[in-house]
Amino acid sequence: MYSLNYLIGMSAIAAFAMAGVLAAARKDMDLVSLTFLGVVTAVGGGTLRDLLMNTEVFWVVDFNYVWIAIGASISAFYLERHLRDESVWALILYLDAFGIALFGVQAIDKALLLNFSAPVAVVMATLTGIGGGLIRDVLAQRPNLLLSREIYATTIIAGSIFYIALLGLSGKSAWVTLAGVAFTFLFRSLAIYRHWRMPKWMILRSNLNG
Amino acid sequence: MYSLNYLIGMSAIAAFAMAGVLAAARKDMDLVSLTFLGVVTAVGGGTLRDLLMNTEVFWVVDFNYVWIAIGASISAFYLERHLRDESVWALILYLDAFGIALFGVQAIDKALLLNFSAPVAVVMATLTGIGGGLIRDVLAQRPNLLLSREIYATTIIAGSIFYIALLGLSGKSAWVTLAGVAFTFLFRSLAIYRHWRMPKWMILRSNLNG
Amino acid sequence: MYSLNYLIGMSAIAAFAMAGVLAAARKDMDLVSLTFLGVVTAVGGGTLRDLLMNTEVFWVVDFNYVWIAIGASISAFYLERHLRDESVWALILYLDAFGIALFGVQAIDKALLLNFSAPVAVVMATLTGIGGGLIRDVLAQRPNLLLSREIYATTIIAGSIFYIALLGLSGKSAWVTLAGVAFTFLFRSLAIYRHWRMPKWMILRSNLNG
Repeated sequence: MYSLNYLIGMSAIAAFAMAGVLAAARKDMDLVSLTFLGVVTAVGGGTLRDLLMNTEVFWVVDFNYVWIAIGASISAFYLERHLRDESVWALILYLDAFGIALFGVQAIDKALLLNFSAPVAVVMATLTGIGGGLIRDVLAQRPNLLLSREIYATTIIAGSIFYIALLGLSGKSAWVTLAGVAFTFLFRSLAIYRHWRMPKWMILRSNLNG
Repeated sequence: MYSLNYLIGMSAIAAFAMAGVLAAARKDMDLVSLTFLGVVTAVGGGTLRDLLMNTEVFWVVDFNYVWIAIGASISAFYLERHLRDESVWALILYLDAFGIALFGVQAIDKALLLNFSAPVAVVMATLTGIGGGLIRDVLAQRPNLLLSREIYATTIIAGSIFYIALLGLSGKSAWVTLAGVAFTFLFRSLAIYRHWRMPKWMILRSNLNG
Repeated sequence: MYSLNYLIGMSAIAAFAMAGVLAAARKDMDLVSLTFLGVVTAVGGGTLRDLLMNTEVFWVVDFNYVWIAIGASISAFYLERHLRDESVWALILYLDAFGIALFGVQAIDKALLLNFSAPVAVVMATLTGIGGGLIRDVLAQRPNLLLSREIYATTIIAGSIFYIALLGLSGKSAWVTLAGVAFTFLFRSLAIYRHWRMPKWMILRSNLNG
């Protein structure tokens, strides 16, 4: 079970890194920069989480996460044209969805284990999911998640609350973990598949800032 | 006295969050993103301070700060049109001034208590005041404080030096705290009210970088 | 030897700060903002390194680094016109090269001393060298290193691997330190002098992201 978890975590890191490279890639960028951005996308959120919880940064302890991210980034760099093939790109999007679902549950487990409160755990899950992409977009000078109407952070927040509620109701078990991951993954997958956007009453309509 | 301090601190957090949402708000942004930016504005500076001092992040220990920031951000989102009313906006600006003054003094107390030197304490006060706004502007891709000629960080630095000098002269007391908060608040308020800008000899006049 | 090392480190900090101010300087920016950006450039990378290794931030322990960075930034502000003189600018570029070389070796020593693995040490050396400049460029809203084809991070990575290999072969000695610093410095200096750019096979040629 441990090694399956580990393997799944590594797949999610690889998906994060690949999606990161593809999102940031622009003509004339070089392999070193793009690999750096891929790795930042993959491990940036978890790094932020660990810094905020004042605990050891996960990839500093187990560098395999970075190796996988480097490998995935270099692969994405050279396979770029093929990865933009529609079905491959879709696969990466859903792997990314799986990644935020899995990392969300892991972040909550880690936060609760360190005796932080449930709301803090939800924040940590959210930052783990969105942090890497935000840092990448800032460094690559492209519009980020916060400026789009996509439903991303919301799925992590909802899934985290659901998972913590389950934990409270029935205690920790493989089924509860599975349900927690499944909730976020399905919510985010539906948002991708159906092109869900934020509802109108949650959108700012005035334009006073220009 | 504790509960008054706490209440005042919470008001400042709320003002920071509201000002943050109003500054970042642009047409088509959604509630979740703007609340995120409001919370980041409110707690970002103090988070940076705590990370740099290698101490526990304040809102991880007491999540009430984040709850208040979330509440204030959501209120600002729905009241947006009214909050742009000139007098309300002025109120928020002065509350923000009060916030940097209060948080500056708190940051210095915290830094000195942790046995850091006076200059480190001044840096911590400054970062507490400007950090949140800087992170917000980077994420919202808008021009930040450093690129404007407004007098903001300078008021915190001056107020911090004044407060530390007072501490050295007469030791810690309620009056000294009050004087420290008042100094920064009045300096910043005057800068707002009189539209003070940096003097010419502190402005770069050449334009070699284009 | 200690005081020489210390002196050299301070020179490198000063060069980092000056190069930072000159890179960020644009018409109408003020002294406080530019000094802030200079200091961030000089100490930002090492700060990131120390946060990630969960150790005390170096300038919080020894504030002299910040004093030197402040002094160098203010000097750069007022001497700006002269520093843009071609030969002075070249001097700063080479001092910066010396800075990343020296700080790279110092970062590796610090990481290995804290019992981190060799790959972690390479990452820390790289972040120490590029972190400050990246943060400065994000705050000053200018294109950063990752978006250029200059050879910068690569020289730190290569020099770090070379230095760690030497350490493994012959143990720590003044000669090994010297060789480590010299490798990165010469590689980076050649890249500056010969205007080396990334080779074609490491550059993205497609332009699908627009």
